[in-house]
Amino acid sequence: MMSVVFSFPDFETVANSIAAVLNIKRGEMLVRHFPDGESYVKLETPVEGQDVIIVCGLDQPDKKVMALMFLTNVAREMGAKSIGLVAPYLGYMRQDKRFQPGEAVTSDIFAAFLVTLVDWLVTIEPHLHRHKKLDEIYTIPSKVLHANSLIAEWIRYNINFPVLVGPDEESEQWVSEVARMADAPFVVLRKIRHGDRDVEVSVPDVGKYQNHTPVLVDDIISTARTMIETVKHLKAVGLKAPVCIGVHAAFSGNAYEELLATGVEKIITSNSIIHKSNGINIEDMISDALAKMKL
Amino acid sequence: MMSVVFSFPDFETVANSIAAVLNIKRGEMLVRHFPDGESYVKLETPVEGQDVIIVCGLDQPDKKVMALMFLTNVAREMGAKSIGLVAPYLGYMRQDKRFQPGEAVTSDIFAAFLVTLVDWLVTIEPHLHRHKKLDEIYTIPSKVLHANSLIAEWIRYNINFPVLVGPDEESEQWVSEVARMADAPFVVLRKIRHGDRDVEVSVPDVGKYQNHTPVLVDDIISTARTMIETVKHLKAVGLKAPVCIGVHAAFSGNAYEELLATGVEKIITSNSIIHKSNGINIEDMISDALAKMKL
Repeated sequence: MMSVVFSFPDFETVANSIAAVLNIKRGEMLVRHFPDGESYVKLETPVEGQDVIIVCGLDQPDKKVMALMFLTNVAREMGAKSIGLVAPYLGYMRQDKRFQPGEAVTSDIFAAFLVTLVDWLVTIEPHLHRHKKLDEIYTIPSKVLHANSLIAEWIRYNINFPVLVGPDEESEQWVSEVARMADAPFVVLRKIRHGDRDVEVSVPDVGKYQNHTPVLVDDIISTARTMIETVKHLKAVGLKAPVCIGVHAAFSGNAYEELLATGVEKIITSNSIIHKSNGINIEDMISDALAKMKL
Repeated sequence: MMSVVFSFPDFETVANSIAAVLNIKRGEMLVRHFPDGESYVKLETPVEGQDVIIVCGLDQPDKKVMALMFLTNVAREMGAKSIGLVAPYLGYMRQDKRFQPGEAVTSDIFAAFLVTLVDWLVTIEPHLHRHKKLDEIYTIPSKVLHANSLIAEWIRYNINFPVLVGPDEESEQWVSEVARMADAPFVVLRKIRHGDRDVEVSVPDVGKYQNHTPVLVDDIISTARTMIETVKHLKAVGLKAPVCIGVHAAFSGNAYEELLATGVEKIITSNSIIHKSNGINIEDMISDALAKMKL
């Protein structure tokens, strides 16, 4: 098969890794934004008869989707045989329900749009909540990669005596699995939500972990509000400064600085979204997964 | 017929005017952007069984089209009978050709996307160049409104002895028509392009207009480069400080300040794109056109 992999800005190393592991061509493309807010796209490598892979993380999606639409369209016009999307982060997964009358269920509408552009999708830890599987909204073949083993590996290599902390019951399954892989104990806090900005966290008996380093893990860190509350509570009961791990560094506003300011030991994220906290590399995981998919 | 008109931010007065002239309901909606760059849309007025009109200028299109897509989708889910778009400015009209191999022809791709969202389109002075009519790319009913008479009216009311100036041969038809409507003379300069940033302008004999106020008109002012060059040339031959009129205030970067700095008397645009230079009101023209369309 003849394949070529293109990359949106920020994901060149992911595309390089894919090209190397799959032994396929590394395509060149140009994406620019005019001052009037319009996007410009130019494919600089021929795609005729090729299976095309595009790496485009869908954080800050509105800034990228028009360019992605232009790219997939021009690729098809230029004779691409198929187009697959590798989105290390998949946006628009959180509004998965009409919470109030008249609200757009953006997860579903965005999925219906994206499937018109590409033929298959690979992503990492999409925020599945009410939708249990990506297939419920993405009607093209999709593959979900899990970051658990990468997180567990990072913990094993970097923390002597970790104790994983789940911020709420919802996180238990995820935290317990990472803990098992990292060969570490875990505790899960209980969260009582009084309102949008008012979250009370109750810490179970953690007396036996006074000499451990608490490790908080979550799929996305955006407002970081839950993590900040959790860190404060852990400090209040005398635990050591925790390490915070998020797969997706979707920090909004000053969330990163605010989380740092709580006195955490470290904040670590994967490079699914480029951020200074990146410490876990998703490149090999993606390349290996694509290699197994026999594209 | 039961109709309701919704407005994106910046176009509330246009929507109010439409509601008043057509005697239809003014719908409320909410468009927000989360810090992570995702859009949130909520229809706050029922649309079941209604013909829906959405006012959304498509300047800075990438910032708005996802919200527009969510809005049109939720409106249809909520039972809207039809959806029309009033776009005072229609974006993505300038890349109407593949100038270099591999370039996305964004005018065509964007049009093909927009027609999946709405049933009809009304816009003002779209930048038609290689496409001669909007129908060539917009496969839904569309109506193009012309700002000529509004510009001519502004000139008649505000300038004692105008002479319209067309920056190049391409502009002659447009400038001559506005001049006729404004009952004013006109001249058309000759432009010799040596490169992207190197444009030479030759001024015909304008000795007889030394006491007139030159009026430059164009459909879009974006980089303002041509206007700036034209102003410099008019000054060089001793004409009075000109008035610059653009339908669409798509100023990029410091273009507005740079144009002002050439010593123009005034820069005037329509409120198709909100800008401090707005002086020509397009609201009545839009409302009257919709009223005639018997929506």
